[in-house]
Amino acid sequence: MNLVPYKRFAVELARASGELIRPFFGDLSLAVETKADASPVTRADRAAEEMLRDLIAQKFPWHGVVGEEFGEDRPDAEFVWVLDPIDGTKSFISGCPLFGTLIALKHLGRPVLGVIHQPVLGQLLIGDGSLSELNGRAVRVRECRRLADATLLTSDPLNPARHRNGAAFAAVAEEARVFRTWGDCYGYLLVASGFADIMCDPIVNPWDIQAILPIIRGAGGVVTDWHGGEPDNGDSLLAAHPLLHGRLVELLNP
Amino acid sequence: MNLVPYKRFAVELARASGELIRPFFGDLSLAVETKADASPVTRADRAAEEMLRDLIAQKFPWHGVVGEEFGEDRPDAEFVWVLDPIDGTKSFISGCPLFGTLIALKHLGRPVLGVIHQPVLGQLLIGDGSLSELNGRAVRVRECRRLADATLLTSDPLNPARHRNGAAFAAVAEEARVFRTWGDCYGYLLVASGFADIMCDPIVNPWDIQAILPIIRGAGGVVTDWHGGEPDNGDSLLAAHPLLHGRLVELLNP
Repeated sequence: MNLVPYKRFAVELARASGELIRPFFGDLSLAVETKADASPVTRADRAAEEMLRDLIAQKFPWHGVVGEEFGEDRPDAEFVWVLDPIDGTKSFISGCPLFGTLIALKHLGRPVLGVIHQPVLGQLLIGDGSLSELNGRAVRVRECRRLADATLLTSDPLNPARHRNGAAFAAVAEEARVFRTWGDCYGYLLVASGFADIMCDPIVNPWDIQAILPIIRGAGGVVTDWHGGEPDNGDSLLAAHPLLHGRLVELLNP
Repeated sequence: MNLVPYKRFAVELARASGELIRPFFGDLSLAVETKADASPVTRADRAAEEMLRDLIAQKFPWHGVVGEEFGEDRPDAEFVWVLDPIDGTKSFISGCPLFGTLIALKHLGRPVLGVIHQPVLGQLLIGDGSLSELNGRAVRVRECRRLADATLLTSDPLNPARHRNGAAFAAVAEEARVFRTWGDCYGYLLVASGFADIMCDPIVNPWDIQAILPIIRGAGGVVTDWHGGEPDNGDSLLAAHPLLHGRLVELLNP
């Protein structure tokens, strides 16, 4: 399958939503609502997803769309776009630039294309499972064999204890060289581009993961759920260099 | 004392060092050395501090300078500049934009002016103890009375247990609404500008704190050491809204 036209369109989508989102960053007057699942949302999230849906409907009206804010249209179509207009909304509303737009394209149920776009920093990372490019330059995960040399990232430092084996995670965090919550999609961007070694989320939503998979794999990394399995249902994510990933699964699931 | 000429010069310093530092951000080929205290340093840190020292020596040759990388010149002068060219070097070398340049001016031993500059995001925060301005706009700490409503930040999530009462900090982190390591000087920038509520560091260096004090106070916040005392010797920092700060000191020091 020729992905080029879809890649080009995915970049257009990211740039368009970035133009919309950027002016809202650092705007203290932006009203924040709380959704049913207690997560925050703003009119920037909603306006960006509406724009993305409109652009997709104009270009590929027969494609499906699944988004965080407006649900599913034709989720069983051959091609389905999966959208999270602002992944890391807590960062976004806090004036912290560690957020981004996630855009994925699924073909016959399998993610074949993923984009992470950070519109304030102007970073656009696109991957197709065999190649990942940050602003047009191929990127690779950093070789890291030992946890003691690793930069470990997660989105919320309290979530491992809430959703997984907290003591196992605490031991991993203690052994890592650096442990930080440079989280949400930006953590996966840092791992895919060779700036950090491990990004993990003990709990994720289905729309969070589809873009991540072809990006981490295209950069030569391994990404699974918390137990080392295929993360196709959401659940959790663990991304690292192949030489480190297997050991991490062991350590996190003693 | 008329601070206007010093403020203008501090902004010039920040802009000049920012021009120097910015091209190194996101450069995977930047060599990282490890200093005697195990902290990382790069030629961007050193070149920026050299440039700042040169500019100060040209403009105010009788002023003192204290910097992270090149030590002390005339530390007992009436006016002393305190420099940390890249605060948050671990972020900087990891492609994470949560770093900044710290510039403080001390007069007769007291910090009267502070700058936090994030050169990639173009954010320049300057405070003089009674006014703090982010890119020319006055900022204030956000009113937050309850820990359960607060966004809590620290630089390294493992440091409270290493240097203070870890159980007390863990309880504070558990009760806060959001807990993240949007750390180093960027955490204080977020508190001063009303985007987060608490920033704390259980351990700091002397060159880290001088710029922070007039910024947090100029934004209406309270900043002390971990025990509620004046943080003049480095040691630790705790910044929050006046309505929350006293309770935090109690909770962190049971």
